[in-house]
Amino acid sequence: MTKNRGVVYIEPGKVDVQDIDDAKLEAPNGRQIGHGVILKVLSTNICGSDQHMVRGRTTAPSGLVLGHEITGEVVEKGSDVEMLDIGDIVSVPFNVACGRCRTCKSQDTGVCLTVNPERAGGAYGYVDMGGWIGGQARYVTVPYADFNLLKIPDRDRAMAKIRDLTMLSDILPTGFHGAIKAGVGVGSTVYVAGAGPVGLAAAASARILGAAVVMIGDFNKDRLAHAAKVGFEPVDLSKSDRLGDLVAQIIGTNEVDSAIDAVGFEARGHAGGEQPAIVLNQMMEITRAAGSIGIPGLYVTEDPGAVDKGAKVGSLSLRFGLGWAKAQSFHTGQTPVLKYNRQLMQAILHDRLPIADIVNARIISLEDAPQGYETFDQGAATKFVLDPHGLLQAA
Amino acid sequence: MTKNRGVVYIEPGKVDVQDIDDAKLEAPNGRQIGHGVILKVLSTNICGSDQHMVRGRTTAPSGLVLGHEITGEVVEKGSDVEMLDIGDIVSVPFNVACGRCRTCKSQDTGVCLTVNPERAGGAYGYVDMGGWIGGQARYVTVPYADFNLLKIPDRDRAMAKIRDLTMLSDILPTGFHGAIKAGVGVGSTVYVAGAGPVGLAAAASARILGAAVVMIGDFNKDRLAHAAKVGFEPVDLSKSDRLGDLVAQIIGTNEVDSAIDAVGFEARGHAGGEQPAIVLNQMMEITRAAGSIGIPGLYVTEDPGAVDKGAKVGSLSLRFGLGWAKAQSFHTGQTPVLKYNRQLMQAILHDRLPIADIVNARIISLEDAPQGYETFDQGAATKFVLDPHGLLQAA
Amino acid sequence: MTKNRGVVYIEPGKVDVQDIDDAKLEAPNGRQIGHGVILKVLSTNICGSDQHMVRGRTTAPSGLVLGHEITGEVVEKGSDVEMLDIGDIVSVPFNVACGRCRTCKSQDTGVCLTVNPERAGGAYGYVDMGGWIGGQARYVTVPYADFNLLKIPDRDRAMAKIRDLTMLSDILPTGFHGAIKAGVGVGSTVYVAGAGPVGLAAAASARILGAAVVMIGDFNKDRLAHAAKVGFEPVDLSKSDRLGDLVAQIIGTNEVDSAIDAVGFEARGHAGGEQPAIVLNQMMEITRAAGSIGIPGLYVTEDPGAVDKGAKVGSLSLRFGLGWAKAQSFHTGQTPVLKYNRQLMQAILHDRLPIADIVNARIISLEDAPQGYETFDQGAATKFVLDPHGLLQAA
Amino acid sequence: MTKNRGVVYIEPGKVDVQDIDDAKLEAPNGRQIGHGVILKVLSTNICGSDQHMVRGRTTAPSGLVLGHEITGEVVEKGSDVEMLDIGDIVSVPFNVACGRCRTCKSQDTGVCLTVNPERAGGAYGYVDMGGWIGGQARYVTVPYADFNLLKIPDRDRAMAKIRDLTMLSDILPTGFHGAIKAGVGVGSTVYVAGAGPVGLAAAASARILGAAVVMIGDFNKDRLAHAAKVGFEPVDLSKSDRLGDLVAQIIGTNEVDSAIDAVGFEARGHAGGEQPAIVLNQMMEITRAAGSIGIPGLYVTEDPGAVDKGAKVGSLSLRFGLGWAKAQSFHTGQTPVLKYNRQLMQAILHDRLPIADIVNARIISLEDAPQGYETFDQGAATKFVLDPHGLLQAA
Repeated sequence: MTKNRGVVYIEPGKVDVQDIDDAKLEAPNGRQIGHGVILKVLSTNICGSDQHMVRGRTTAPSGLVLGHEITGEVVEKGSDVEMLDIGDIVSVPFNVACGRCRTCKSQDTGVCLTVNPERAGGAYGYVDMGGWIGGQARYVTVPYADFNLLKIPDRDRAMAKIRDLTMLSDILPTGFHGAIKAGVGVGSTVYVAGAGPVGLAAAASARILGAAVVMIGDFNKDRLAHAAKVGFEPVDLSKSDRLGDLVAQIIGTNEVDSAIDAVGFEARGHAGGEQPAIVLNQMMEITRAAGSIGIPGLYVTEDPGAVDKGAKVGSLSLRFGLGWAKAQSFHTGQTPVLKYNRQLMQAILHDRLPIADIVNARIISLEDAPQGYETFDQGAATKFVLDPHGLLQAA
Repeated sequence: MTKNRGVVYIEPGKVDVQDIDDAKLEAPNGRQIGHGVILKVLSTNICGSDQHMVRGRTTAPSGLVLGHEITGEVVEKGSDVEMLDIGDIVSVPFNVACGRCRTCKSQDTGVCLTVNPERAGGAYGYVDMGGWIGGQARYVTVPYADFNLLKIPDRDRAMAKIRDLTMLSDILPTGFHGAIKAGVGVGSTVYVAGAGPVGLAAAASARILGAAVVMIGDFNKDRLAHAAKVGFEPVDLSKSDRLGDLVAQIIGTNEVDSAIDAVGFEARGHAGGEQPAIVLNQMMEITRAAGSIGIPGLYVTEDPGAVDKGAKVGSLSLRFGLGWAKAQSFHTGQTPVLKYNRQLMQAILHDRLPIADIVNARIISLEDAPQGYETFDQGAATKFVLDPHGLLQAA
Repeated sequence: MTKNRGVVYIEPGKVDVQDIDDAKLEAPNGRQIGHGVILKVLSTNICGSDQHMVRGRTTAPSGLVLGHEITGEVVEKGSDVEMLDIGDIVSVPFNVACGRCRTCKSQDTGVCLTVNPERAGGAYGYVDMGGWIGGQARYVTVPYADFNLLKIPDRDRAMAKIRDLTMLSDILPTGFHGAIKAGVGVGSTVYVAGAGPVGLAAAASARILGAAVVMIGDFNKDRLAHAAKVGFEPVDLSKSDRLGDLVAQIIGTNEVDSAIDAVGFEARGHAGGEQPAIVLNQMMEITRAAGSIGIPGLYVTEDPGAVDKGAKVGSLSLRFGLGWAKAQSFHTGQTPVLKYNRQLMQAILHDRLPIADIVNARIISLEDAPQGYETFDQGAATKFVLDPHGLLQAA
Repeated sequence: MTKNRGVVYIEPGKVDVQDIDDAKLEAPNGRQIGHGVILKVLSTNICGSDQHMVRGRTTAPSGLVLGHEITGEVVEKGSDVEMLDIGDIVSVPFNVACGRCRTCKSQDTGVCLTVNPERAGGAYGYVDMGGWIGGQARYVTVPYADFNLLKIPDRDRAMAKIRDLTMLSDILPTGFHGAIKAGVGVGSTVYVAGAGPVGLAAAASARILGAAVVMIGDFNKDRLAHAAKVGFEPVDLSKSDRLGDLVAQIIGTNEVDSAIDAVGFEARGHAGGEQPAIVLNQMMEITRAAGSIGIPGLYVTEDPGAVDKGAKVGSLSLRFGLGWAKAQSFHTGQTPVLKYNRQLMQAILHDRLPIADIVNARIISLEDAPQGYETFDQGAATKFVLDPHGLLQAA
């Protein structure tokens, strides 16, 4: 192992690439973990949810090593690891999960009960998610490795598809969960709010699930143009504050079968400012009676930078009466990556899901991460993939 | 047929029993309906949702004939009715449904697309639900009768269990839907908000679904005492504003597997006044991570009597960030009675579901309906069943 | 209406096109049906299950008017028909269903309890399926029309896609049901037994459901070549009697996630003769542990032409011990077309499911039906679509 | 730890209690298992499937230590065990499962892919199930302990309910799986084939799932009498070979909603001899159209003692044409205990599921096991529970 280096959160608006501690087979509480492995990180992506921290919208402490979208190679393994070998290429679900508690046993690995003493659910490199060290780094530790890791069957095929496979750690299963929970199926008409990487992943998921029409709404012209280029119906939200009308222009009716909120709490309204409930309220409006709304977009319990007092503690003014009258259901939470990543990997390996092109993946070096964060924050129609060992750009 | 009489809404706080038009095989739009039947009403219950109208919390017009919980005998049938005979005893789902539209075909009869020109979903005797005449009357018309009506197999068994079977038209399937959507199963710990008839029906549903523990919370001492008497764990909300603590006193932990909101928009807080979002927010707090919340309690799109501007149009301040962090799902809407009533009837007929005793059914005459409304509105621990032809009290 | 003509079964090996009775709003039992419509048949396909009758493998009586795959235009409607208008273009599910019985209400329209006095389930133009007159004709009657018929939204779009939409009446939902019941999802590896039209429809269904790999096995070289041409992996059963080996050559392992039997009781073995259980036994062998097997292929209760005594009454020698050890599940029966046809129509109308090309649809005139039956029986890699009014060939 | 002793299979018809090797943290392949624990066995039951071995109907080798229904106390744990402590009382699922493979992650622990090199699925003390040492002993080793073991929350409550909780290791979840897969729900009419312990557990499961009527069929008068005593409807198969008639005498119709085969391959017909397919064929006959059949009864791939050549390799002559015509589905395989045992434990601890009385549990000493085997084999209406340390009889 070479010296470890990683992307570190410094203060609002600033990240830095620094030398960090070597990865060890150790949990945040100091316990040795025979069930863990150390990975050489092959690829690790910058995520929209990292931006919440970097924008100062959370209580993330300075010094936190970022990164929860990780694909790597096993370089060391603990005594209890039985199904993995040194040299295996693996995808890491962003949720840290033990595989032994009630929720993990029920496939709800997004809310594992044991890996985070503060609340249900853990993640790498994220505030309040259990203290697991982030993977925007050269090396990273993964606990409960036999349970958590998805082995990519063949090294050559893995490297040939690495730009796509790197999306298995988070955004593809996140979008897929949104689509599944929104009830997308063959022939569905679908609206996705937000044309960022998660929105595009949700749209790609809706398509492979057989949707008849997939619309994506955003204010960002570049992102809309990219969404159109990869085959989705763009909905330019700046054209009208009546979303139903925009939808009707495309499908002839102002309601869809399924709606997916891939925006979350930093939603903005037609007038420009933040309106944290606007997307959820629009979803109720444009979703058909008896329809489901999938909500992979992040909503938080504390938002110091929120526009109003309620939103600071995660309270939103929702048109719940409307949703109730339409007998809708609402599905929230982190995706349980493990529930979906094997099947999505199969789809990628068999050329059915060109997710890298759909989200417009761009590979940059680890050292260029700060620039990547900045460009992404400005709304680039791009998903940045860090390449800590220069192996992707070489490939 | 004798002359028709029914319960008529006059003005806030006032209902009256009056002569009303004879039942005809005719839809509200005047169309003749060969698919309809006329029923002699054997029993018809006063519902909590009737109270919303009578309290003046809706835009119900004076003169509206009330009643959507109906059990009757077929006394006339249209030319298209093939599966029913004169003399059959039938339970009427409160949702008017056509059985021919997309949502009806998918068993979502609560949001039928054709029986109400204004929105999805119809009901008898209810404001904004399509203009179908109510059944707190001697006779009532039921359209799409072969589809809508559930025949009770045997007349004698029907009359012997009529106090229970009368609950099939609404509150039992309503409570059951809440329990199903809350994910109640064998061994579940369950909290039901509200110890009125729907709350008790939800609790009874949870029990027959195999729940290990069923708690019911309310402020009303009489209702709590009755809930305890029929075997549920009462939770006296006046004891603390920390619901989790009250729950923990019973089951040793402050979270349940499944929570059911059987209160709806007229919810009250610990301090006394209306707080329309309080029950929903409590449900998020006490439901476990990855749990589901069933919401049979009614939330409305317009509430002229609401405490604040948002609530007047159905907007509530929900702690959505909390629900999202716990990966919860929320299930709303009118129950599709048809999806559940046959199986619930079987459970009643085979002595597995003594719902009349559980909700404390009391039979009164049609003429005494005004007194029933008043007593029920005062919080009596009773479900009032009207007996328009004196056949139940005779039985 | 012009004079009615239709395809009539004469004797084993022989069908004829003859003048037949005019379509009337009448059920087989003579009852007038206000809920029925008369359709001018726009397209009507020859089905593999028609061949069972024509080959003399059933007890079909001479004189039976054939045809259960029907798309048409409403030319007359009964007094109870409310949702359809004269001129509407509609797809007819092959299952006759009342929409009013227990199984229909649960979407199991393939086993409607009221339209066939002899057993659950009805169909047009089929022995033992209730006596409903077949639709390989100029005109046909459809009962319970509001419930049964799927309206194609727009006449021009309907005619533009009529070659595809004609598959909605049977084979596409039949194949889709097989795929759904086999548990096909995103990333699945799938094996379909039989490269005839239903097998191809099952394969097309698996693909739109997101399958990673779809294999189709057959002995017929032409059908295999066509399957390959439309993008599936052909499995030439003449190459080996070890199906697992053939599968492994394609996907690297001898088990698939999901298997679909699109062959049924006239299955043939490697040695050439009929072996009615061979496909089912192969499915158990090549399906993974905990996998599901979808069985849209027809198995019958009586087969006078069967190879052994057991098979004559529908008893097959199944390797049930193997299936049990692998914890598999088996799903049988006619597809409930209504459960799937709306969503499949949407997929067709939005260019996601080119089913006509996949099954190699060929339009012929009604008068040429006998030739179509013969060619199809010889194993042509073609799905024949009859065009009773010459409107398709014109379009 | 005292010296280990256990029940050993000697030869057909003979078991013996002998000194056996001490339990070690070691897998059958000799690998050390840091994820394992050693249990002091508190209770361990004799199972009907043990009888298959003891009757010589399998290839079980002499010397095999029997026993897969185990409840115990943790007395030693490996370095990787994090969620369990010495002294914890735990229920052991009979399926050995790794919690790390694809099927385990999907809750299909009955067909774990890694614990048995020969086929999917492992068990303790059973032929061909991976060589894991049986638990009809004083001590036993459990691998992947954090994943496999269900901790009973409180020691005193555990001991107070131990007669019931001991059924969690196998027969209660086995019966429950059968009921779930047969689609039993509130109001169902249910037929269970076989009044032995698994049949009674299936019946108890059907009841707690809300079934309206639960019938159990058998030839054994004692077992029928016991079934009646604990509240089920006995069906005496010696009365008629037309099961539908017997069913109709109880529920008025010859078909049930759900049927459960709790007999398996050693089924006997009305005439007396073995007819391995008779129960499955009866299930198709008496289950309604669109119904499901749950098959927890064991069917094997090899049965040297079978009555005919087909059955010796697990081939049965099934009336599949009948099942297909009725659109039934068939669900096989070992129950995945882990999927159900937590919720069933909750039901037991809260007094909702008196399973010990329902199966007529009788506690005997380990040394009396041979007598228990013999009495059970003779058809005693009893479930024998071994008490290796004399702690149950003391309690």
